[in-house]
Amino acid sequence: MKKIGHFIADIREQNPLVHHITNYVTVNDCANVMLAIGGSPVMADEIKEVAAITGLASSLVINMGTLNERTVPAMMLAGKTANQKNIPLIFDPVGVGASSFRNQIAEELIKNLSFSIIRGNISEIKFIAGLGSQTKGVDASTNDWLSESDTQVIANQLASKLKCIIVITGKIDIIADGTRTIAIHNGHPMLSQLTGTGCMCSSLLGAFSSVANENYFEAAVGAILTMGIAGEFAYENVGQDGNGSFRIALHDAISQMDDHMIEDRRKIYEL
Amino acid sequence: MKKIGHFIADIREQNPLVHHITNYVTVNDCANVMLAIGGSPVMADEIKEVAAITGLASSLVINMGTLNERTVPAMMLAGKTANQKNIPLIFDPVGVGASSFRNQIAEELIKNLSFSIIRGNISEIKFIAGLGSQTKGVDASTNDWLSESDTQVIANQLASKLKCIIVITGKIDIIADGTRTIAIHNGHPMLSQLTGTGCMCSSLLGAFSSVANENYFEAAVGAILTMGIAGEFAYENVGQDGNGSFRIALHDAISQMDDHMIEDRRKIYEL
Amino acid sequence: MKKIGHFIADIREQNPLVHHITNYVTVNDCANVMLAIGGSPVMADEIKEVAAITGLASSLVINMGTLNERTVPAMMLAGKTANQKNIPLIFDPVGVGASSFRNQIAEELIKNLSFSIIRGNISEIKFIAGLGSQTKGVDASTNDWLSESDTQVIANQLASKLKCIIVITGKIDIIADGTRTIAIHNGHPMLSQLTGTGCMCSSLLGAFSSVANENYFEAAVGAILTMGIAGEFAYENVGQDGNGSFRIALHDAISQMDDHMIEDRRKIYEL
Repeated sequence: MKKIGHFIADIREQNPLVHHITNYVTVNDCANVMLAIGGSPVMADEIKEVAAITGLASSLVINMGTLNERTVPAMMLAGKTANQKNIPLIFDPVGVGASSFRNQIAEELIKNLSFSIIRGNISEIKFIAGLGSQTKGVDASTNDWLSESDTQVIANQLASKLKCIIVITGKIDIIADGTRTIAIHNGHPMLSQLTGTGCMCSSLLGAFSSVANENYFEAAVGAILTMGIAGEFAYENVGQDGNGSFRIALHDAISQMDDHMIEDRRKIYEL
Repeated sequence: MKKIGHFIADIREQNPLVHHITNYVTVNDCANVMLAIGGSPVMADEIKEVAAITGLASSLVINMGTLNERTVPAMMLAGKTANQKNIPLIFDPVGVGASSFRNQIAEELIKNLSFSIIRGNISEIKFIAGLGSQTKGVDASTNDWLSESDTQVIANQLASKLKCIIVITGKIDIIADGTRTIAIHNGHPMLSQLTGTGCMCSSLLGAFSSVANENYFEAAVGAILTMGIAGEFAYENVGQDGNGSFRIALHDAISQMDDHMIEDRRKIYEL
Repeated sequence: MKKIGHFIADIREQNPLVHHITNYVTVNDCANVMLAIGGSPVMADEIKEVAAITGLASSLVINMGTLNERTVPAMMLAGKTANQKNIPLIFDPVGVGASSFRNQIAEELIKNLSFSIIRGNISEIKFIAGLGSQTKGVDASTNDWLSESDTQVIANQLASKLKCIIVITGKIDIIADGTRTIAIHNGHPMLSQLTGTGCMCSSLLGAFSSVANENYFEAAVGAILTMGIAGEFAYENVGQDGNGSFRIALHDAISQMDDHMIEDRRKIYEL
């Protein structure tokens, strides 16, 4: 696999504009992570302007966190604009499975848009794959965890069906394109104790895919490695101090991340 | 009084899902505090899904911070769902008294819902009690401060009238159930120099009441002690450095909080 | 020029209430910066209450960050209330130039309201001045940068036309009232690597102008110096650690800022 770290240099060089239609819980973290990795964030969800904003952007991230009726048409229009422009389109189906409204919107978005990458926790991805899941709000249910090999099968079947990259983040991260699967063993459990680490992963997917020349599988590996390795540095530096310090150190590590840190630390396995 | 710290162990064990319909100013802090204390936050305000989300949750926190017409019906529906399920329902009447719109909505929510705990600053609680208040936006007016004994009377009269726990946070925190009153002398003035410390208290009330088996008075004491003592640790550790560092240390302290820290530090007085 | 630092003592003494109608990306930073400098923030955007809230406030900040149809009439009504009360009215035309919707709203707000101070990056101000600009989402395009003298001309022409103070923030900050121009050479490039530093400047403009007795030019110089000098302290203290630490140190520095720090550090030049 291509030297993953190369993506980071490209992001810092090209400074891609990444349009987000996202939730109001973690939006500030997403914007700061985008800047930390070298991209330029823009958040806009008014239907009267999303086509224009996506028109300026290098990629679009649609995040369902605080989904509401006002923004759904904006998501659809911006997504279609991204597809027409052939720029990467990322989907974070936050909390799908938790309500029929959310399920229906996720289904409509997937039916009408062509996503480059879909990232979720195991509960969310199982739900989208049409399997039973026991989502618990926006966090994965421990009842939904599967073996690495079973997760691999689900991810690849869904990737083949939807013709996109599937990313399942959790204790082990799985990235699949329908034929290839990468498992990433980086990261730290404290990442699950901060809000928005999933959303931030999706923002990083937007940044990495913006400079990937359609190599979205490699871009996804790079983005997920970045978050996992940043989590390791953050824990090693200040993890004992608590959640607040860990969060700051995570942003520090993302802003410091480079090729060498990725190459030194990466624990990726082809399944 | 029961060992308050026991609640924290229970939250960390049970990981309750706490549904918030809240404002976009402090929502990220509330989500991170919920994770820091061991709960699981979910923020959702679309009327088409709030009943389903409250249906999954162990408690509901309604916070009026950035109140708007779109979310009021969602607050009402989610609140009724919480009442039907008999799960704890927390109300944070942010800024009540500052506009007739806000006053009217607070009145309607209180009239139609049965709250377990209502938490506000002295200006907000005086307003809800039907007394004159001089609210200043979302912060208490110093003109509204009363003696501890007068505050006690107001809190208990309102608690009796509304059949719920009343929590008044400020320099001294007052918790009343209509017959009993606890004054908490923990905390630090720097807490008033951060946005969202009141909102975070209300989130903690959601977490503590979720594991309290309807002992909401004790849950409220535990939640308010947690914030006060965390504020003391934060100040002692980094308070001289400024507001940014204090905020991080506050989150650190909440994530580190346990039974022993509560028992060692608590300054609670039965009035 | 009056000792700029005097404003900070006045803000801390008077604790002005600053009403914001702003975006959900950086709203928490704006609230915390307002508290750090000694003001009291209130964020409210429901049209049914904005006139009442502005009625309580000492100034109003209108920020177009995540502009949407729901809040535009609220901006207009609150702005008119501010004009009627003759309190300072600040405009942050975030991302103007990026969509025709955004351009049209900015035009309507400027046509119907009398702003005290308008602050933007060079792309935004050039757009409002009717010159070509190449805005890139919410960040300035490097293609739009001009010489200090050309920037001075644009700022003063616009200030004269709109009868308000124009503030252009960037590597060098320009403040103009139509006849006078101040260039500020404080600050640090890392400020552009955090989301919301522009929005926070606009909030500081709200705080400073609240205590300025209509000396908005001096107030603007004080507010922009505060952010620039805070950025210098933050970089010197922890800049090497990364974006997360820099952000915290920035908030620390704003909360510690005083007359002496401003006087010692200020690099202001009359052009």
